[in-house]
Amino acid sequence: MFALFTDFGFGGFYVGQMHAVLATEAPGRPIVDLMHDAPAFSPEPAGYLLAALLPFLPEGTIVVAVVDPGVGTERMPVAVRADGRWLVGPDNGMFEPALRRASLSEAWRLDWRPRQLSASFHGRDLFAPAAARIAVSGAVPGAPIGSDRVRRPDRPHDLAEIVHIDGYGNAMTGLRASTLGNGDAVAAGGQPLPRARTFGERPAGSAFWYENSIGLAEIAVNRGSAAELFGLSVGSPVTVSSG
Amino acid sequence: MFALFTDFGFGGFYVGQMHAVLATEAPGRPIVDLMHDAPAFSPEPAGYLLAALLPFLPEGTIVVAVVDPGVGTERMPVAVRADGRWLVGPDNGMFEPALRRASLSEAWRLDWRPRQLSASFHGRDLFAPAAARIAVSGAVPGAPIGSDRVRRPDRPHDLAEIVHIDGYGNAMTGLRASTLGNGDAVAAGGQPLPRARTFGERPAGSAFWYENSIGLAEIAVNRGSAAELFGLSVGSPVTVSSG
Amino acid sequence: MFALFTDFGFGGFYVGQMHAVLATEAPGRPIVDLMHDAPAFSPEPAGYLLAALLPFLPEGTIVVAVVDPGVGTERMPVAVRADGRWLVGPDNGMFEPALRRASLSEAWRLDWRPRQLSASFHGRDLFAPAAARIAVSGAVPGAPIGSDRVRRPDRPHDLAEIVHIDGYGNAMTGLRASTLGNGDAVAAGGQPLPRARTFGERPAGSAFWYENSIGLAEIAVNRGSAAELFGLSVGSPVTVSSG
Repeated sequence: MFALFTDFGFGGFYVGQMHAVLATEAPGRPIVDLMHDAPAFSPEPAGYLLAALLPFLPEGTIVVAVVDPGVGTERMPVAVRADGRWLVGPDNGMFEPALRRASLSEAWRLDWRPRQLSASFHGRDLFAPAAARIAVSGAVPGAPIGSDRVRRPDRPHDLAEIVHIDGYGNAMTGLRASTLGNGDAVAAGGQPLPRARTFGERPAGSAFWYENSIGLAEIAVNRGSAAELFGLSVGSPVTVSSG
Repeated sequence: MFALFTDFGFGGFYVGQMHAVLATEAPGRPIVDLMHDAPAFSPEPAGYLLAALLPFLPEGTIVVAVVDPGVGTERMPVAVRADGRWLVGPDNGMFEPALRRASLSEAWRLDWRPRQLSASFHGRDLFAPAAARIAVSGAVPGAPIGSDRVRRPDRPHDLAEIVHIDGYGNAMTGLRASTLGNGDAVAAGGQPLPRARTFGERPAGSAFWYENSIGLAEIAVNRGSAAELFGLSVGSPVTVSSG
Repeated sequence: MFALFTDFGFGGFYVGQMHAVLATEAPGRPIVDLMHDAPAFSPEPAGYLLAALLPFLPEGTIVVAVVDPGVGTERMPVAVRADGRWLVGPDNGMFEPALRRASLSEAWRLDWRPRQLSASFHGRDLFAPAAARIAVSGAVPGAPIGSDRVRRPDRPHDLAEIVHIDGYGNAMTGLRASTLGNGDAVAAGGQPLPRARTFGERPAGSAFWYENSIGLAEIAVNRGSAAELFGLSVGSPVTVSSG
């Protein structure tokens, strides 16, 4: 299975052209649009989202993961394998949280290059074809490198920022709920909020945080928009106070 | 074939994770994103849209239909079969219009549960895997119940409300055009509008209603936005006056 | 492979119903959503985008291409083949740029009609089923016509207009970059802009034009929105001044 994780949005032809490449060069494999509104131009928060999403993909999945503000400049194209799932994309730190949490990790420098490489769309021209080659041959078209080469040891274990706002206005943080206590309060752009288990246990209009469906602490308002209520966007800082 | 009908929107990873589950647990079957902007948190109007869409899906299609404001509270997970098409989701009344219009209907309580059930995303954790099991085995992982158990006999046959605004600003009602006369006028947020057959037969800027491509009465403006002109949104009331 | 190119947007059920038709009537073939925000109601600029996208699709691809402001009025349903790729849709001039640039082109009038043809959704009722028939049988359900019948010889070779704004606010023109010189400046709604090779070679906030990933001249601002800065939308005129 291929999974696409990008900040391209569904508008335009970017996603469609990546599908066309994968369906042509590695036919017969499902292609899942995991997420195309990853934090725009922001590999760091995107990486914490990506790491939280990986356990929900079957082993063997090849994730083409492109949040690439540096496209057209020098950065190493890489493939990594973290606990059986592949990540293919530019080396810009986005894979750090996934690698740090994996029991087993490997890394390769992608050496394959297309005949024609556009300056602005390496997702289509380089990363999708490389992913297709991995799927078809089971091997990376490149050289193994120490996985230290793609690590960012200075990054925090969890990110105290908003990393995604969903269509309902729920504001996901880069904090794993498992690292927080039941009595901990989470604040972003307002007063500290208590923990809840479900939306249903709170009255309409009330704000809280809860462990969302991918294990992250998420700020929400039952039948309302937390993002609007607290003026949150991707990158807004989050604080935790112990209960 | 699987068809997904939700109010999740295409943003974020909700739709992608459902695809990943279906492609993993019931490989080789097409997965169609029928609609992901069903009326948000509103199973009643969503049900009238869903019923209008079913005849366009081939028999045997398994629709994972999740508009689920009650997620995390008690409501029965169900599967129903209406004239050969499966509907899998929470029992919240959304299936009533489809069941009422079907010649043959059956219902099951879903008894299967995943090892891990998140509080907020039963679409991924419960309904998609149950749909996959139906596809693979041809049987529902649960007990047959009388289809009366999932009915809502007090609901109207057709819903005199706006149930969807499309990208052009056309405002779909929950009224089947076949229940209206050619001389009937339909009003929503303004003066009663006459019936037209096509956009082309009306001058640009003129408002009318017509039978849309799924058989519902739809309020439209040729080369304009009916939703903007009349201030309509999902839930706006609609009135019919006889011609 | 099928590719869909429409102005339907991803909202609602339009795209989903086309997928359902194709997956049912020509099973087992990939269906790529190439683009669903083609210039709305505007076959002329849409055609220049479409022609730029075709070389990136494998030979044999069947593009269902529906930008159809005339739906419900008289216009000939057609299929054309341009250098090995099929285009199926209404004859409204959208295929002109692709045909003009093709070495080999053929055209057919689609004579097949469905039992039930809605007044407003020929993409689902006529063009997708015709595309499925072409895929399954290898033949067009209709009569060959001279490709002159679908040509528009009065159209320009390249279109000096904005034809698409992407999610980042980059403004694509209908001008192939290969027709422009390195010293040529491109202006749209403001001062003439110099050419750049990549985003990375310009400072943040600076405006320029460059050859985008499908070969068109595109007006962009590094880490900014050209559409906002210059007030551009689809149809905005573009001028070129020689360097």
